[in-house]
Amino acid sequence: MTRPILFLTDYGLDDEFVGVCHAVIMRITPSARVLDLAHGIPRQDVLRGALVLADATPYAPAESVYLGVVDPGVGTDRRPVVVESGDTLLVGPDNGLLSLAWDALGGAKRAFTIESDEVVPPGVSATFHGRDVFAPAAAHLAAGLDPPTVGPAVDPSSLVRVTVPLPEVEPGRVVCRVVAVDRFGNVQLAAEPDVLEEAGIAGAPRLEVRAKGHRSPAREARTFAEVAEWAVGIVVNSSGRLALVRDRDSAAESLDLAPGDEVEIALPGVAGPGRVIPLPGPFRPG
Amino acid sequence: MTRPILFLTDYGLDDEFVGVCHAVIMRITPSARVLDLAHGIPRQDVLRGALVLADATPYAPAESVYLGVVDPGVGTDRRPVVVESGDTLLVGPDNGLLSLAWDALGGAKRAFTIESDEVVPPGVSATFHGRDVFAPAAAHLAAGLDPPTVGPAVDPSSLVRVTVPLPEVEPGRVVCRVVAVDRFGNVQLAAEPDVLEEAGIAGAPRLEVRAKGHRSPAREARTFAEVAEWAVGIVVNSSGRLALVRDRDSAAESLDLAPGDEVEIALPGVAGPGRVIPLPGPFRPG
Amino acid sequence: MTRPILFLTDYGLDDEFVGVCHAVIMRITPSARVLDLAHGIPRQDVLRGALVLADATPYAPAESVYLGVVDPGVGTDRRPVVVESGDTLLVGPDNGLLSLAWDALGGAKRAFTIESDEVVPPGVSATFHGRDVFAPAAAHLAAGLDPPTVGPAVDPSSLVRVTVPLPEVEPGRVVCRVVAVDRFGNVQLAAEPDVLEEAGIAGAPRLEVRAKGHRSPAREARTFAEVAEWAVGIVVNSSGRLALVRDRDSAAESLDLAPGDEVEIALPGVAGPGRVIPLPGPFRPG
Repeated sequence: MTRPILFLTDYGLDDEFVGVCHAVIMRITPSARVLDLAHGIPRQDVLRGALVLADATPYAPAESVYLGVVDPGVGTDRRPVVVESGDTLLVGPDNGLLSLAWDALGGAKRAFTIESDEVVPPGVSATFHGRDVFAPAAAHLAAGLDPPTVGPAVDPSSLVRVTVPLPEVEPGRVVCRVVAVDRFGNVQLAAEPDVLEEAGIAGAPRLEVRAKGHRSPAREARTFAEVAEWAVGIVVNSSGRLALVRDRDSAAESLDLAPGDEVEIALPGVAGPGRVIPLPGPFRPG
Repeated sequence: MTRPILFLTDYGLDDEFVGVCHAVIMRITPSARVLDLAHGIPRQDVLRGALVLADATPYAPAESVYLGVVDPGVGTDRRPVVVESGDTLLVGPDNGLLSLAWDALGGAKRAFTIESDEVVPPGVSATFHGRDVFAPAAAHLAAGLDPPTVGPAVDPSSLVRVTVPLPEVEPGRVVCRVVAVDRFGNVQLAAEPDVLEEAGIAGAPRLEVRAKGHRSPAREARTFAEVAEWAVGIVVNSSGRLALVRDRDSAAESLDLAPGDEVEIALPGVAGPGRVIPLPGPFRPG
Repeated sequence: MTRPILFLTDYGLDDEFVGVCHAVIMRITPSARVLDLAHGIPRQDVLRGALVLADATPYAPAESVYLGVVDPGVGTDRRPVVVESGDTLLVGPDNGLLSLAWDALGGAKRAFTIESDEVVPPGVSATFHGRDVFAPAAAHLAAGLDPPTVGPAVDPSSLVRVTVPLPEVEPGRVVCRVVAVDRFGNVQLAAEPDVLEEAGIAGAPRLEVRAKGHRSPAREARTFAEVAEWAVGIVVNSSGRLALVRDRDSAAESLDLAPGDEVEIALPGVAGPGRVIPLPGPFRPG
C-alpha cells in the first residue's frame, strides 16, 4: 500500500512551486495520493507551519507521510530530515517545523538525514529543496522505502524544536500572542481555554480585550452568531485554542491585530491602557 | 463504486480549513475523489455559492455528492442537511446554499438532518462544521451510506431557499444586480440575455451601461476581442448570464463595480444620471 | 493506461473556472489524474505561462498531456490545437503558450486543430474554451484518443511562438528583463548565468543592480542565507535563470520591480544612472 502524503508549505499557490513538487512525486510514485493541507503559511513562518501540522494530526490518515517545507535556511547547513513518530513519517528541514507534530504523535522515535543518492537526485538546486530533496524523499517513503535508507541516523534529541510563546497568567488577566489570522479575520491566540480558569475570569459576564493601546468589550461565546454586534467574542476555536471573533465581521481588522501581536484578556476592573476601540455598528457597553 | 465529491466553500486556500476537510474525507473513505469546485466564494456569500453550485450541475460527474459550506450560522440551530435530487446528494447547511443546485437537478426529492452518531463524531466543534459534520457526512455518503441513515427526514418544502435578485425590465432599459466579479474583472449580472429582447434593446447598435452615477458606452459582443477599446462589452457569459467585459482590461475596475451593486443597461436616448466614465485608452463614442 | 494531465492556466483559484474544468475532465475520463501545475499565471501573460510550462518539462510524468490555457484571444479565430512532442501531447490555444515546452521536449512533431464533434461538444461558449474545448480534448487524449481524431492536421511550422526577450551583454554590464516575481519577492530575470561570464563580471567581488534609476549593491550568491543584509543577491534559481533575491526579504519590493521591467547588472565602475536604493536594514557598502 502507498502511504498518503500530507503536504504543507509556505509556497503559496500563485507560483508553480507546489505544482512542480506534485509532478516530482507523481513521477517517482504514480500511485501516491497527495493531500494539500495548506500552502498559504505566511512566508518563512516556521512556528505557524508547526502549529498547523500539529493541529492536523488527529485528522490525518493512518501511516501518512507529512511533507512540510517552510525553510528560510534552504541551501545552508540546516539538515534535511526524516523523523519517525508512531506510524507516521515526517519529512522536512530540521528547523522545528515538524517538532510540534511529532510531539502530538507521541515523540520522535528515530530520525535520519536525507542524503542518499538514491533519494536526492544529482544537481540539487540551492534554493528549491522542496522539489529536489523533500518531495523526492516523501515520494520514496510513500512507496515503502525503509527510512534508514535515506541517510545516516540522527539523534532525535538533537533535532531543532520551535517554542510556542506561553501565555502570562495573573489574577484577572491573561497576556498572550496572536499566532494566526484566518480568512474570516478570526484571531487565533497562543492560549488554551484553561488560562481563563487559571486567571479566575472564565465565565465572567464582562471581559475586555486589550491590544495596541486600545480596549474593546468582550465576552466568551460558543458560536459566531452569539457574539453581540458591539463586542468581541472569545471562543474556543476548532484547534482548541482561544480565538477572538466577531459576528460576520473581521476581529483582526476591528482590533488591528496580526500574528505576533500581544493581546490581553482581562476583567474590566483591572487597570489597562488606552481607549475603547470604536467598532463598526452601534456601540452598547455590555 | 465510490461517488465523487464536488467541494465548494468560502474557506479560501490560505488557511488549512480545506486541507483538513480533505484529510477527514480520506480517513473515512480512502477511495473518495474530491473535486475542488471553488473555495474562493466571498466570505459568507450564500447567494454566490448557490449560483456557482447550480452553474456546475451540467458539468458534475454522475452520482456526485455535492459538499457545500458557506455557513455564517455555524453552531446555531440552522440544520445541517443532506438533500437528494436526481442521482445527486447535496450536503451542507440548510441556509439556501444548496437550493439553486437542487432546482437545476430537478428538485429536492428527500432531505435528512445530519445528526446520527455514526456520521457526526463526538466532540463536534461549534465553529468548524465543515470538518466535523459536513465532510464526514459527504465521505460516508460517497462510500455508499444510505441517506436516511444520517438522521431524521426533513420535509423538503421546509428547506431554506435563496432568492436571486430579479432584473427590472422596462422599454429601453434593464436594471439588475452584480452577482460576481471574476479574476479578469468581468462583471456577472443577475440577468439572462432574454431581458434585452424584453426591453427591446437586443441588437441595438449603441447601448449604455450606467452604474454609480456614471455612464459608459456599451455594445453587445460575443468575444472579449470584439469589444472596442473605448467601450464596455455586454456578453452572454459561460454561465448563460449577461456580463460586462472589456478587452484585456477589468470592467469591474473601469466601472467601479462589486457584487451587490446595481447596474442599468439602456438605450442612450433614455435619460440617465451622471457623466461618462473616463475609460483608459482613447475615447471614441460609438 | 490513462495519461496524466498537467494543467496550467491564468484562471486563478478564487473563481470556479479551474474546478469546472476538473469536473469536465472527470466526467469524460474518470480515471484521469490531473496535476495542477499553476493557475496563478498573471492574467493573459502568455510568455510567463510558456516559461512555466517549459520549466516543468524535466519534472512532468512520462506521457503527460499538458493542458495550458492563457488565452486572451478566446473566441476569435486563433486555433485551438493539440501538439505532439516526444511522448507528450500539448493542448491549448495556438498563441505561443505551448511553444517553449515543445522546444524543451524536442520540437513539435505533429499538430492538429481541435474541431471534431467527438471532442468539442455542441453549444461551445465564446468565452470559456478551457471548459468547452481544451479540457474535453485533454480528457479524451488522456484516455487514449488518437491525436489525429481531434481535427485536421496543422503544419507545425505554422504554429505561433513566443519570443523570450534576450539579454543585452556588453563588457562590464548585462541588461535584461524581469520575467517573474514569486511569492517571496524573488525577481526572476530573462538571463542565464553564462551572461555574467560573457560580460566578464562573473565572480566579481562587487556588483551593482540598476533598475528604475536606482542603484543597489549586489553580489553573486548560492543561497538566500548568504546574502548580506545590505545587499541584493544574484543567484542561479531553480529554473536555471538569474534571479535577484534578498535574505528573508522581498527583492521585488526593495527594488520596486515587476514583470517586464528592465534590470542592469554591472560592475560599480561603469557609469550608471541614479542613486543608491535605500534598502531596509543597516547599510554597509560591500
